[in-house]
Amino acid sequence: MERASAAGTRWLTDEEQRTWRAYMHAVTLLEDHLDRQLQRDAGMPHVYYGLLVQLAEAPDRRLRMTELARRAKITRSRLSHAVASLAKNGWVRRESCPSDKRGQLAILTDEGYEALTRTAPGHVAAVRQALFDRLTPEQRTALGEIMTIVAEGLQPKESGADLPWLR
Amino acid sequence: MERASAAGTRWLTDEEQRTWRAYMHAVTLLEDHLDRQLQRDAGMPHVYYGLLVQLAEAPDRRLRMTELARRAKITRSRLSHAVASLAKNGWVRRESCPSDKRGQLAILTDEGYEALTRTAPGHVAAVRQALFDRLTPEQRTALGEIMTIVAEGLQPKESGADLPWLR
Repeated sequence: MERASAAGTRWLTDEEQRTWRAYMHAVTLLEDHLDRQLQRDAGMPHVYYGLLVQLAEAPDRRLRMTELARRAKITRSRLSHAVASLAKNGWVRRESCPSDKRGQLAILTDEGYEALTRTAPGHVAAVRQALFDRLTPEQRTALGEIMTIVAEGLQPKESGADLPWLR
Repeated sequence: MERASAAGTRWLTDEEQRTWRAYMHAVTLLEDHLDRQLQRDAGMPHVYYGLLVQLAEAPDRRLRMTELARRAKITRSRLSHAVASLAKNGWVRRESCPSDKRGQLAILTDEGYEALTRTAPGHVAAVRQALFDRLTPEQRTALGEIMTIVAEGLQPKESGADLPWLR
């Protein structure tokens, strides 16, 4: 990979600079806000909530750990840690994969499903209030388009791409 | 605060759901991408880079720790940890505030300024390539507007607001 040099750098324009700072502020504050909300109301960080949602939507409420890491966009070691903690709560249990001895499944328990059901209304209200309710319909559409472009751009299809769940 | 109940919940529409997931994927992947880039090229995480930028732009390249936490949108304990690590590198030093014995200043050293100057071109290139270069001018403008609305909405002016740097 070519290292950029100061001479050839296309620095951000003033407007891009403002946009980039607003992006970082919004993202940092929103993550903090939702994490606090979920810690307060359900005793779990935001990332755990996302894992429960993924499992709840999967057939038989179960996913292979590698697939769960890919869907949550996190590293396998971060996932292992999170699932161990959710298992301690009794919200998730692990089983070895019947078709592949080395594979592990994460399975949402009934208690985990109830915890999610209890927590979802407050969480959705927080997401609405902090994000969707503040935007015009045009801005909501633009946000969806922009974030899809960025997320897809950061997941190249080549094998060997440096993606969290492949590490 | 009123807790939302399932019956009265305004669930996300399918389109909002897709937007929200794309947002979380983009944000998670972009943070991972920039963190990896900075670790690889400069041996520091993304949040440390942001602190060096804030200090470089401040008069005399120094800020009170409380002000630096507010600008970076992080908790004081996270900032203390980061500044301790940057001080170990010789990139930042701490001094007590002359006007306020309990206050502490973080000061960017010449080595820190050089590290930033060396790192900035590669980092700006990564931000451009992952974000700005993928968007149309209209999308760039919309992104700035949306993120400003969200960031301002999450920083209410009332004292007692639950903001990271006030904890």
